[in-house]
Amino acid sequence: MARIEKVRADHYLIPLPRVLEDSMHGAMAGFEVVTARVIDADGAEGVGYTFSCGVNGGAIADILGREMAPRVKGRDADLIEAIWKDMWWAFHYGGRGGPTVFALSALDMALWDLKAKRANMPLWRLLGGFDPNVPCYAGGIDLDLTAAELIDQTHANFAKGHRAIKMKVGRDRMSEDVAKVAAMREAFGDDLPLMVDANMKFTVDGAVRLAKALQGFDLTWFEEPIPPDDPAGHARILRDGGIPIASGENLRTVWDFRTAIEGGVTFPEPDVTNCGGVTPFMKIAHLAEAFHLPVTSHGAHDITVQLLAACPNRSYLEAHGFGLENFVEDPLEIRDGFAIAPERPGHGVNFDWGKLESVRA
Amino acid sequence: MARIEKVRADHYLIPLPRVLEDSMHGAMAGFEVVTARVIDADGAEGVGYTFSCGVNGGAIADILGREMAPRVKGRDADLIEAIWKDMWWAFHYGGRGGPTVFALSALDMALWDLKAKRANMPLWRLLGGFDPNVPCYAGGIDLDLTAAELIDQTHANFAKGHRAIKMKVGRDRMSEDVAKVAAMREAFGDDLPLMVDANMKFTVDGAVRLAKALQGFDLTWFEEPIPPDDPAGHARILRDGGIPIASGENLRTVWDFRTAIEGGVTFPEPDVTNCGGVTPFMKIAHLAEAFHLPVTSHGAHDITVQLLAACPNRSYLEAHGFGLENFVEDPLEIRDGFAIAPERPGHGVNFDWGKLESVRA
Repeated sequence: MARIEKVRADHYLIPLPRVLEDSMHGAMAGFEVVTARVIDADGAEGVGYTFSCGVNGGAIADILGREMAPRVKGRDADLIEAIWKDMWWAFHYGGRGGPTVFALSALDMALWDLKAKRANMPLWRLLGGFDPNVPCYAGGIDLDLTAAELIDQTHANFAKGHRAIKMKVGRDRMSEDVAKVAAMREAFGDDLPLMVDANMKFTVDGAVRLAKALQGFDLTWFEEPIPPDDPAGHARILRDGGIPIASGENLRTVWDFRTAIEGGVTFPEPDVTNCGGVTPFMKIAHLAEAFHLPVTSHGAHDITVQLLAACPNRSYLEAHGFGLENFVEDPLEIRDGFAIAPERPGHGVNFDWGKLESVRA
Repeated sequence: MARIEKVRADHYLIPLPRVLEDSMHGAMAGFEVVTARVIDADGAEGVGYTFSCGVNGGAIADILGREMAPRVKGRDADLIEAIWKDMWWAFHYGGRGGPTVFALSALDMALWDLKAKRANMPLWRLLGGFDPNVPCYAGGIDLDLTAAELIDQTHANFAKGHRAIKMKVGRDRMSEDVAKVAAMREAFGDDLPLMVDANMKFTVDGAVRLAKALQGFDLTWFEEPIPPDDPAGHARILRDGGIPIASGENLRTVWDFRTAIEGGVTFPEPDVTNCGGVTPFMKIAHLAEAFHLPVTSHGAHDITVQLLAACPNRSYLEAHGFGLENFVEDPLEIRDGFAIAPERPGHGVNFDWGKLESVRA
């Protein structure tokens, strides 16, 4: 048994080297990171984190540090399912979504890290173990790039070991989206796994229109064509647009994913930092398997590589840093299109806490 | 035009005279209230509020005061739809639910109050105007009461002007729920409008079992038999249980309600303090009308009476104070089963700010 002695929350703001843009979130100048550190009675520590695009971070840190921390102090850190259920219901009114679930995600991740460290195992082995080599893709926030810039960015991603690419769509003129996808196919051939991401920009009709225009380009998936809360809309895009659909970065918990999958999402895409943590992420992955679907991911590639390495139905891991890799001792290794889950105990992400001090929010 | 000069957020904790209990939220010792005050360039003020059961309040106040306030400063307060849409998307990542939507609800309510005050009209007239006399019921948090205590509480509610009652169900033994409902029918006859509320306690099977056992008692609705994120489950309870279903206090936005209504919720029950504010509340009410459904409500009866007084499909208003009425200058008037929407400009709820200082969180 590992008695929880303390939970510590810290709030950082990591500026981006240049302002990024997608179709709906607007300009992003930095990312907020909230870390959770769970220390047990033996002094062992588990670490979790979550992030946001520059808002809601103060709320996440407040819930985690001021409200959740005292509620889990003294509890048996091994009983993660029990802690998760109690936190879910204790915070349900006002918290069935939004910052509360982000806070719970960080706490849950820290508990799994602690458990794996105590077992002296990497998380991917503890969670079942499938294959430490996880196919991955480079996800760009590149809606504002020209075709030439996008091709340059892709060459740079190839040099980093990537062999699959996701690009943003959702320009005001559809012809620009189509031309950029065509330029990518022309530059890199038919076999490059290529995904597009609209960040919820379209109506259902608009998404069907773009999907049809892109049908000749053999896309792996069309991500977030519309807002996540329209199961019937996803069903129609899948049927009439004829392209697989990925969605999930804006869905919370296994229950949201069930409704989305029953609608028409064929690439469920949970984010371990906001779906509720490792506990729901694995359930969502297994739910997808029950529907004979692959599971992909959003965000936190350094942690998520561990989770997909435990899933037989894992699809591509999204590799997408926003600068956090500069505060981590051993950044994720990417080799010939695969991200490699390390053999270090726990999730294997060790923060440089001293360096993080310089970006405290 | 009314330029927004300032938005002020304040956080209070109102202790309850006795600890209350329902089936899933556990013991509640107090309610948190977060107020929003929007002041325009002419010095006019609109007031909004939201509440929680004792958690998440700090997060709500942080988002509202530190993050939303500077983003709306300088904007035209009349353009509520524009402000709502911009806030929804600015806070979407990390905020599509939970404390962020509670904060947005309070802000939106304040903007509507300001608009109605500037128009020198009560909100219910501004929003369309139907009937200021809104049928209402007394909602008790009374799972732990005996049948005799429940009957006493009902007599007290009758003395306050109520003619319809909602009681909690979800005791560990179903026979206790059934016996309490039977005692209420025996004490007050067949014509008393009587609702039951399980606060998400049951599985679908368990809910069907209780619904069948209660079929002889002519209940107006069975509220939150299961968690809100199971549309197929609601459909089965409605079909097999044979009792109308109310749900909504844990749903956010018009999109959540559409999915719930398409599932099997026949009494949609938005809460103006957490569905996103007056703007989405009215859309949800009109969505219900499009499905030929009534609309009921949760929480904030003093504000909600204004909204239901503008809806031709309004059903019962929930009247349920948690002590906030002690900090309000003119508490809601209830007369012979109806709540009366006042003719004062705005939503008509004027806080005693000096008295609220004594319960600042």
